[in-house]
Amino acid sequence: MVIPSLIQHKRDGHALLPTEWRQLILGYTAGRIPDYQMSALMMAVVWRGLSPEELAALTDAMLESGDRLNFKGLGRPVADKHSTGGIGDKVSLLLAPMVASCGVAVPMMSGRGLGHTGGTLDKLEAIPGFRTALSLREAKAQVERIGCAMLGQTPEIAPADKRLYALRDVTGTVESIPLISASIMSKKLAEGLNGLVLDVKTGSGAFLPDQSQALELARTMIGLGHARRCPAVALLTAMDRPLGRSCGNALEVEEAIEGLRGNGPSDLMEVTYALGTEMLLLVGAAANPAEARRWLEESVTSGGALEKFGAIIEAQGGNRAVIDDPELLPQAGEVEVFRSPRDGVVSRVEPRRIGRAIVELGGGRRTVDDEIDPAVGFVIPTKPGDTVRAGEPLASVFARDQDGIEVGVAALGEAIVIGETGTLTPLITHRVTRDGVEGL
Amino acid sequence: MVIPSLIQHKRDGHALLPTEWRQLILGYTAGRIPDYQMSALMMAVVWRGLSPEELAALTDAMLESGDRLNFKGLGRPVADKHSTGGIGDKVSLLLAPMVASCGVAVPMMSGRGLGHTGGTLDKLEAIPGFRTALSLREAKAQVERIGCAMLGQTPEIAPADKRLYALRDVTGTVESIPLISASIMSKKLAEGLNGLVLDVKTGSGAFLPDQSQALELARTMIGLGHARRCPAVALLTAMDRPLGRSCGNALEVEEAIEGLRGNGPSDLMEVTYALGTEMLLLVGAAANPAEARRWLEESVTSGGALEKFGAIIEAQGGNRAVIDDPELLPQAGEVEVFRSPRDGVVSRVEPRRIGRAIVELGGGRRTVDDEIDPAVGFVIPTKPGDTVRAGEPLASVFARDQDGIEVGVAALGEAIVIGETGTLTPLITHRVTRDGVEGL
Repeated sequence: MVIPSLIQHKRDGHALLPTEWRQLILGYTAGRIPDYQMSALMMAVVWRGLSPEELAALTDAMLESGDRLNFKGLGRPVADKHSTGGIGDKVSLLLAPMVASCGVAVPMMSGRGLGHTGGTLDKLEAIPGFRTALSLREAKAQVERIGCAMLGQTPEIAPADKRLYALRDVTGTVESIPLISASIMSKKLAEGLNGLVLDVKTGSGAFLPDQSQALELARTMIGLGHARRCPAVALLTAMDRPLGRSCGNALEVEEAIEGLRGNGPSDLMEVTYALGTEMLLLVGAAANPAEARRWLEESVTSGGALEKFGAIIEAQGGNRAVIDDPELLPQAGEVEVFRSPRDGVVSRVEPRRIGRAIVELGGGRRTVDDEIDPAVGFVIPTKPGDTVRAGEPLASVFARDQDGIEVGVAALGEAIVIGETGTLTPLITHRVTRDGVEGL
Repeated sequence: MVIPSLIQHKRDGHALLPTEWRQLILGYTAGRIPDYQMSALMMAVVWRGLSPEELAALTDAMLESGDRLNFKGLGRPVADKHSTGGIGDKVSLLLAPMVASCGVAVPMMSGRGLGHTGGTLDKLEAIPGFRTALSLREAKAQVERIGCAMLGQTPEIAPADKRLYALRDVTGTVESIPLISASIMSKKLAEGLNGLVLDVKTGSGAFLPDQSQALELARTMIGLGHARRCPAVALLTAMDRPLGRSCGNALEVEEAIEGLRGNGPSDLMEVTYALGTEMLLLVGAAANPAEARRWLEESVTSGGALEKFGAIIEAQGGNRAVIDDPELLPQAGEVEVFRSPRDGVVSRVEPRRIGRAIVELGGGRRTVDDEIDPAVGFVIPTKPGDTVRAGEPLASVFARDQDGIEVGVAALGEAIVIGETGTLTPLITHRVTRDGVEGL
């Protein structure tokens, strides 16, 4: 296999053979193919795309580079959710225990925050003692015992993807729908799932703001899943404003606990119920959407889901008492209320600006090695379309010190735009299945 | 300067700033920017191209990464030629001494053969003792003394280009007109020229077979030269068949000596005179094309050009006696005549097949470290359009042994296509100047 010829072939718009992709990934993971050839090839892929056969071969090669979970004989179906990420998106913290308490196993592997979006692992680690670095063996045992584990990507899962993603991150080759799809699906397929639901965010705060690109990503991932006996469904959900009220790690844990108690903000609960419904339906744990929804709501009203979250926290070394006493979560040194500078209607609450401000406050990462402060962030009950009066409280800033408060207040001043008119766009716009796209 | 952002910017079709290109090249040459980022950027350039400002900045940055020759006070104009390379192209061996004997200094920096095309350095080194690895200081002194030096790219000239070219060669990023132009011109501009003539080959054996691409390359290089006070002119010449009769290092030296004696094949002499005429005109050494041509012809008939070639050989440690006794050049162990298999008209003499066969015979390189056998090759007096009879000699194979003869005969059987019709396409098709393109 002559690597420069393969790069040229891809560069000139031709497809490589499945065996060539397999050997490329094997050779790269083994260190036989240098980074400089792989990064040039990745840029050629960003340019030319991948044929369905190439995408399948790349995904399988990355999947096969590592181990997989296997839940045969578990006696329960296994499902998971993946979100493309957004501001205030603490859905996983509610969804995993809710679905698990409905009898579906959830081996949820998540990521850390980088740049303007947060990560589920960082949120969980705001709970004192919570350990996300489970081994595959630990994760499997925990799922067998309590129906759910919430962990980071282990070194055994798709190591080829891990190495390739790190290279793409520093060579401008992240933004490619087939490469993103292969990366996500090679990890999710390793979880041994019977069904996968995808929360694909759209709007200014999303990784792919453009709706048509979000739809293409959804379709591509669903196709990959189905062909590998992992049925998948995607919902396109709004990320032109933060989801829920809280943005910042500990604040989001607190809101998730409130949600599991039945007191969550309606948009957060709506997205969680919708995704949970799809998960129960995908694995045949409910007969129809109404039944799925009822069970999920009952998991909340009965206290079962909150109990399950407590069991997960305890199993992973965290302080379960946070459930009843949120003050045990890390607390910010300073809090300040942000008030409306004028009368008017909220026209925008810009999620990217909020996400950037969390990084500025120390609650997010600029580089993968940054330590984060879990206590900082915002609570923003305000949504586009709200009519507001000058001096009315719109949000709160949670910061380490007075300097942080100033940074946070300035960010809110930019993020919350008050004008003459404003409307809240629909929360869930499309449902994508193997059969096509439904507008909702 | 955040390199991934610059790569993304270029990837998305935007131009980088001249200062950014300067810092990229400086950082890469200094080892601060890793190969894997530069190769991804180069692929983005192959995809998106370079704006005129970017191309100028890249060329200047590579030029300024090294030293330059300076012929101020020489009292003679300085000129050179660059060819994009072809089979049987020994023009440099005639042109440099002819132009030098007309009183124009020629500091000719050339390359080695790689893949199917030969290189001037390899041809010169077929002359016993000939040393092409001159230092810049040696080259300058020799040009001052005898008006010409023929050398390889020294480590002091455009080191950034050298490093970048080696990377492009193994990452599928060679084929880009702006990158090729910047690479060639950063080296040629370092020669301190008053004029540069470009021989841009077209047709199946050329690096850029397509005529419109060849024209674009010519225009791009001419623009770069003029903006840096190095007037340039290009001729597009045919490379759909070998140039002259001999193909192979020692055989081409022998044909060049015959040419300098006035006995060269007409196509070789025509291209050489045409390029020489442009060189003399560019630097003002002749008043008009007719005068330039007359002087060049006189350099041959007077023996002055051959004498100059002898002086160059002697100055660079070679055995000058080869001029009078070509048997002093390396001789092939076996020679065999190839005869026409049928009556008909020659429709093709495929230069790539001949070039590949020379590599197979050991006369060219597969990798930069290969040793080559200077004696092997072909003499092919046959041209497209020739009417031939079965059994008539069409060419000769020069090989190390009988196995090589078989390889060579098989190659000729494929390269020389005999059909019902055939025509010799025009030898010189276009003249490209700063003002535009003239068909010839």
